[in-house]
Amino acid sequence: MTEKVVIIGGGAAGPKTAAKLRREQPDVQIDLYTQENIISYSACGLPYFIENLIQSPETLIIRTPEDFKKQNIDIHLYQKCVKVNPDEQTVLIQDLTNNNIYEVPYTILVIATGAIPVIPKIDGINLKNIFTLRTIDDGIKIKQKMYESKKAVLLGGGYISIEVMEALVNNGLNVTLIERNQQILKMFDKDLADRVTDYIIGRNPGQVNILTGEEVIAFKGNENNEVAEVITASGKRIETDFVVLGTGVRPNTDFLEGSGIKLGIKNSVKVDTTMKTSNHNIYAAGDCTDNYNLVTNKHTWVPLGSTANKEGRCAAINIAGGNCLFEGILNSTITKYFEYTISIIGISYKEAVELGFQPEYAIVTKRDKAGYMPDSEAMTLKMIVDKNTHTILGLQGIGEGDVNQRINTVLPAILSKTKLESFMNLDLPYSPPYSPAIDPVLNAAQIIYQKLNG
Amino acid sequence: MTEKVVIIGGGAAGPKTAAKLRREQPDVQIDLYTQENIISYSACGLPYFIENLIQSPETLIIRTPEDFKKQNIDIHLYQKCVKVNPDEQTVLIQDLTNNNIYEVPYTILVIATGAIPVIPKIDGINLKNIFTLRTIDDGIKIKQKMYESKKAVLLGGGYISIEVMEALVNNGLNVTLIERNQQILKMFDKDLADRVTDYIIGRNPGQVNILTGEEVIAFKGNENNEVAEVITASGKRIETDFVVLGTGVRPNTDFLEGSGIKLGIKNSVKVDTTMKTSNHNIYAAGDCTDNYNLVTNKHTWVPLGSTANKEGRCAAINIAGGNCLFEGILNSTITKYFEYTISIIGISYKEAVELGFQPEYAIVTKRDKAGYMPDSEAMTLKMIVDKNTHTILGLQGIGEGDVNQRINTVLPAILSKTKLESFMNLDLPYSPPYSPAIDPVLNAAQIIYQKLNG
Repeated sequence: MTEKVVIIGGGAAGPKTAAKLRREQPDVQIDLYTQENIISYSACGLPYFIENLIQSPETLIIRTPEDFKKQNIDIHLYQKCVKVNPDEQTVLIQDLTNNNIYEVPYTILVIATGAIPVIPKIDGINLKNIFTLRTIDDGIKIKQKMYESKKAVLLGGGYISIEVMEALVNNGLNVTLIERNQQILKMFDKDLADRVTDYIIGRNPGQVNILTGEEVIAFKGNENNEVAEVITASGKRIETDFVVLGTGVRPNTDFLEGSGIKLGIKNSVKVDTTMKTSNHNIYAAGDCTDNYNLVTNKHTWVPLGSTANKEGRCAAINIAGGNCLFEGILNSTITKYFEYTISIIGISYKEAVELGFQPEYAIVTKRDKAGYMPDSEAMTLKMIVDKNTHTILGLQGIGEGDVNQRINTVLPAILSKTKLESFMNLDLPYSPPYSPAIDPVLNAAQIIYQKLNG
Repeated sequence: MTEKVVIIGGGAAGPKTAAKLRREQPDVQIDLYTQENIISYSACGLPYFIENLIQSPETLIIRTPEDFKKQNIDIHLYQKCVKVNPDEQTVLIQDLTNNNIYEVPYTILVIATGAIPVIPKIDGINLKNIFTLRTIDDGIKIKQKMYESKKAVLLGGGYISIEVMEALVNNGLNVTLIERNQQILKMFDKDLADRVTDYIIGRNPGQVNILTGEEVIAFKGNENNEVAEVITASGKRIETDFVVLGTGVRPNTDFLEGSGIKLGIKNSVKVDTTMKTSNHNIYAAGDCTDNYNLVTNKHTWVPLGSTANKEGRCAAINIAGGNCLFEGILNSTITKYFEYTISIIGISYKEAVELGFQPEYAIVTKRDKAGYMPDSEAMTLKMIVDKNTHTILGLQGIGEGDVNQRINTVLPAILSKTKLESFMNLDLPYSPPYSPAIDPVLNAAQIIYQKLNG
């Protein structure tokens, strides 16, 4: 029987593991250590807090340390794990309030330390008002700065930048997004990514600028050491009141160096399908772990809150002696820019080619409901199918129509490797307020079927 | 090679067959005969036309005879098929403008005559202002009558009655729905159906009444032979200005009697997966055909516009020498009552028990988006799983939240018989505006998993 479970990390996976484990095992001792001043919050909601769709940061907190205390789970705030000693079954914890370091023994350890922003090595990166967005404190700082600003620069063309863009545009700022690649949203095919760019620029003409293929080489500050200008390799100089870095994250695993715990892609913690690491008594869950991609059959690293919750739940069930297999992920992501949804599952056409698949694709632009319904909206879907197996490899969806529904319709078919021939006649429920008589996902499948059989 | 294709029926399946066949075979002769005065319209949109969300009935017309003429497809209106002679490869057509009957030869025949309302044998059923809703003419009559009325009675507690109820309530009428069974929505489990009843009554207190377990035994008319009162077996007398019958439909196949073409459930035309009937040169598609239920592995009859479109498309591909298999249906239906979605796929718990499955179920009530998003809404899902195979048998969803998305997420898993263990960790795309970190469908699957493993 497990006696003392120590959990490191307080974002999504750690608290989820703790809560689920308590339900499974009422008597086990559970201690959770986190370097932050709060736990169990939705980092994914931060852009909507900045936008002020959510007024109070407390709204994002799912459970407080007091809530956990009632479940007999001890939460230790401002306590950072600096070392894991698997042989002794101890961790070293640094008390950030006084920097003292102390040892904590464990029977079972759960590593759930998440991810941390990658800070690009750019001249002037340490100027004031250059922010990352990962914690609630980050969100509060950006929101405060936003309210006293007229213009901002966002680095990186991923989801975070698009979400922060909406927040800033909705609060009246002029915003410039700068992306090093020739397109934003690098996991998408360029044709669809460029449509998103066009939409974003077209929605607020003059207020928004998106620069692709531009590298930032320096930030220039004013007399107060506050960022005032962003300089690109091509010589552009963009005045700004602040900068938000959306330049990626990496696993928060530096403290595991030398521990003997096996690391995988990008130094994420390698786990098996039970969420166990290479060490018998050590589990890991959430953004700090690697993932298995069920489409490519390759290990990958995709840090996401939904995966973190599922992994934490699985880890808890297995720690409690149950049997939960987390088989893998499908690279599913979604975001929105105002009413416009942006989503991809599986792999893009270009990735399919790179990976050696023989892909076929279809692009369908259609309304999401019966065309005569007054609230129907358009959307564009790009479906990718493997010519050899006739299974779906991926779907990209963009538009003001209900893209999410279509993405979710295709996802289980990717998981189950359903043949195109079965999928294209799928009995989707039909009513004019919900879809056309033949749903756009079925149109896409039918078009590919015709291409394969034409 | 096909020379002359004759299509009987002008609703959804017939025109779809014609249009698809023309794309596949530019030169074949195509003639479509229909007893109606228009073709190719969305009957499913009629309630929204009555409600006046759609102002003009023309909006519901997908393609006119003139559109078809441009594609070299001849549409013959007011021409009713009264007999099929498979041995001679001819049909007898009655010209409804003069009642003359003439013979039309075919090489390939497509039967797509749809369904017609069942008129219950009730005293007074022939009084004026007792309507069915199947054609655009029906819709126009009900809409006209609605505008001069204060109160209405709907017979039958199925989708049509709920859709017409919304239309009438939204136009200020007092409405009474009368259902013979102890619940509305008989394909749902009673617990969920009763919640729908509560919602409908609660949304417009005093304006709406739902009587279950009540049989209508007579309609009483006024001096103009207009219906004025509905009388039930328990002695209730309900004053009304008009009645809409939502008491079901049956296949429109009476004219096939004696033709030798095999009929199946409820006298629907038996077809194989290529949409061919028992006769070599005769196909059938749409509401007049039987269906194969992929969950129960039994033949059934579920007349729906979405199925009609897919079947028409498949029939056309096969007539043209291609290969399209329509494998079956999953009993998928959806409707709404104002903002409240009502949907079922697969089978209910009670049906699972009746059919000899050993079902387990979970009911989950949860918000559709992250709870802190200002526009999140609640919904209730009931998932049914087979204890023996751990595959999903059905899902019922109701509520103001985005039920449709969840229904569509589970549907492909039912089709592919995905194991609960794989489904419950499905990598659904997560972002706070689209779902909670763990989606309600996954919660439902997880709860059932716990029940099966607890």
